[in-house]
Amino acid sequence: MDIVVQKYGGSSLADIPKIKYVSDKIKKHVSEGKKLVVIVSAMGKTTDQLELLCRKVSECPVPREKDMLFTTGEQVSAALMAMALNNIGVKALSQNAFQAEIITSSDHTRANIRKINSEKLKVNLKNYDVVIVTGFQGITESGDVTTLGRGGSDTSAVAIAAALGAPCEIYSDYPGIFTTDPKLFPTAKILKQVSYDEMLEMAQLGAGVLHPRAVEIAKKYNVKLCCRGTFSDDNGSCIVSDYIEQPVVTGLSVMENQTQVTITGLPEDHIVVNGIFNYLGVKQFNIDMISAVRMSDNNMTLSFTIVENDNDILEVIQDLQKEFCGCNITSKQHFVKVSVVGLGMRTEKGVASRFFKALSEIPIELITTSEIKISALIHKNYKDRAIQLLAQEFDL
Amino acid sequence: MDIVVQKYGGSSLADIPKIKYVSDKIKKHVSEGKKLVVIVSAMGKTTDQLELLCRKVSECPVPREKDMLFTTGEQVSAALMAMALNNIGVKALSQNAFQAEIITSSDHTRANIRKINSEKLKVNLKNYDVVIVTGFQGITESGDVTTLGRGGSDTSAVAIAAALGAPCEIYSDYPGIFTTDPKLFPTAKILKQVSYDEMLEMAQLGAGVLHPRAVEIAKKYNVKLCCRGTFSDDNGSCIVSDYIEQPVVTGLSVMENQTQVTITGLPEDHIVVNGIFNYLGVKQFNIDMISAVRMSDNNMTLSFTIVENDNDILEVIQDLQKEFCGCNITSKQHFVKVSVVGLGMRTEKGVASRFFKALSEIPIELITTSEIKISALIHKNYKDRAIQLLAQEFDL
Repeated sequence: MDIVVQKYGGSSLADIPKIKYVSDKIKKHVSEGKKLVVIVSAMGKTTDQLELLCRKVSECPVPREKDMLFTTGEQVSAALMAMALNNIGVKALSQNAFQAEIITSSDHTRANIRKINSEKLKVNLKNYDVVIVTGFQGITESGDVTTLGRGGSDTSAVAIAAALGAPCEIYSDYPGIFTTDPKLFPTAKILKQVSYDEMLEMAQLGAGVLHPRAVEIAKKYNVKLCCRGTFSDDNGSCIVSDYIEQPVVTGLSVMENQTQVTITGLPEDHIVVNGIFNYLGVKQFNIDMISAVRMSDNNMTLSFTIVENDNDILEVIQDLQKEFCGCNITSKQHFVKVSVVGLGMRTEKGVASRFFKALSEIPIELITTSEIKISALIHKNYKDRAIQLLAQEFDL
Repeated sequence: MDIVVQKYGGSSLADIPKIKYVSDKIKKHVSEGKKLVVIVSAMGKTTDQLELLCRKVSECPVPREKDMLFTTGEQVSAALMAMALNNIGVKALSQNAFQAEIITSSDHTRANIRKINSEKLKVNLKNYDVVIVTGFQGITESGDVTTLGRGGSDTSAVAIAAALGAPCEIYSDYPGIFTTDPKLFPTAKILKQVSYDEMLEMAQLGAGVLHPRAVEIAKKYNVKLCCRGTFSDDNGSCIVSDYIEQPVVTGLSVMENQTQVTITGLPEDHIVVNGIFNYLGVKQFNIDMISAVRMSDNNMTLSFTIVENDNDILEVIQDLQKEFCGCNITSKQHFVKVSVVGLGMRTEKGVASRFFKALSEIPIELITTSEIKISALIHKNYKDRAIQLLAQEFDL
């Protein structure tokens, strides 16, 4: 069987005309002799609407019940898609997580996929041309419903593709992966090829097209992964292990709503630093852009960013000050992180220098680098200008 | 364990304030030391909204996928109810049909319950005070999602009560079972007790409070069944095997949208009559109020009623005329069936005569009777007047 896994996001399924459009698209693939596993997200803003209902009931809802609630969204999409396909003569069957036997850990609202019954999927693909699977969700060994966290439908799709040894196509409103956000920089180009590593850096930097966990699984199981536009006939972008013609910088990404936290007068003591990071980890903060410098008085200055999060950082800072009372802790909000990513940086020298030269007119608060990435933290007022300057410099 | 099964209908769960109200009500029962299994319907008009979506996708949707779609409604209610209960300190767990293992036949959209895992429910009741189960739905042995047909949540509730050997309370907007529809006849009274048989006749006659299948199961397994108002503290109505103080007529019910079909000149031949009824059965028509009279020319006149159904009766009549071409077939729409029901009719004489005397001013098209019921078909224009006359006559 020539099996292809396709995932359609919520905005591609936002209403019935779109569902019908996608079903026509799927029919074309079927008529080419392919068997399709189609992973669907919840229609349009369904998940947001369910989130709203949920908040009205409880400020701190039981995670297990949140998962029970949210997973209905994808089941609605899957059932409607199966109806739409059967309506145009395509033999299609919907499967929820119970039926597809997508077994996950029991970490409600952020579960990890452990096992997928690929044999059952293959049996269904013998009887049907298209099997539609609810994305974003799984069940535990004991039959509780779980979700993989938001954006988890990408993860579902790539994991199912890995289990089937099939290629995976992710369809969204974007016709592919852009060098940078085309909403911010309209002349942004589509990348025909991106490496897993570049994509990982870009996904984690908020590039928005692919969920980083999906890219990690694709890399691990060597899944042939492409990103295409639902409403476009272009080939889109393919994520590959490596490619020959490497531009120095492949993409530019922007992560908004950053808060910078700076702690000065910290004793040079790993236990204290670990204590701070542990504390923030328990509070579910994702710490990013860590920079630590020893000052002339032998004390440390530690600076890092976190995502702005309903202002509870102020409470956290008060707690930190209580715990580590010798220190002076300040936080500054409304920053953005701009980053350039490219496999070529591994070999090409002088990228950092070109990066800083391009941004010379903009005050930079914090800098971090990896093998294939340079990131700078700047105030949000400079965001558009920075994107313009970097896109010009690196021809993005 | 003192287990009680409670079912809350869609209008009792129409919005978040109502869900919270019901959760407070459930908490009171829990504080009395009870363990509750709560069966929930979909919120308010959810099922109608899903039906609308469904029709936009396909005029004739695959029944299996319809079930996949519709069952999401109850899962939303169950999850929100579990959140609401946990939010006020009540240990509650939601269970969908997969989890509660409600095994049904595979007749999609109108499945029958075959088996319920009552042991699993009891284990969950040891760990939780309230187990919330999605009504209206089940799964087949092979794991397909099914529904029990509209109003099937009553059936779910009574079947679960039967499996647990527990009493069952059906909560709705109505504070109990009325002698007749209080919307049509505002002075209608609540019946403290109704027999299973009376309730069955009334349910099948469209009394609207209880699904007839639920009553059948309650009768078969001798489930203690009560109907109460969600927003009332009264005891409501209890359905019992029999009771001593039997009024002659317990209730009056009205079934609207009736079409009368009359076939004249039919050869007196059971094969032909069976053929007609078989044909209508295949077409999913429910035939009611059958009357057959042999005329002086030895031909039969057959008259019966069906529920008005998107006008496709005209097509059916054409088909019937083709098959049984000697006959003259006519149909008349816009009729209602009014019926009085009462166990007392079994012993009391003269009920029929009081019935017809009361309706003497109204033209009656068709009459049928059972041991505990008399029904008359009248034009819908006479509906209100007939209810008034019958309620007066039988003190309802």
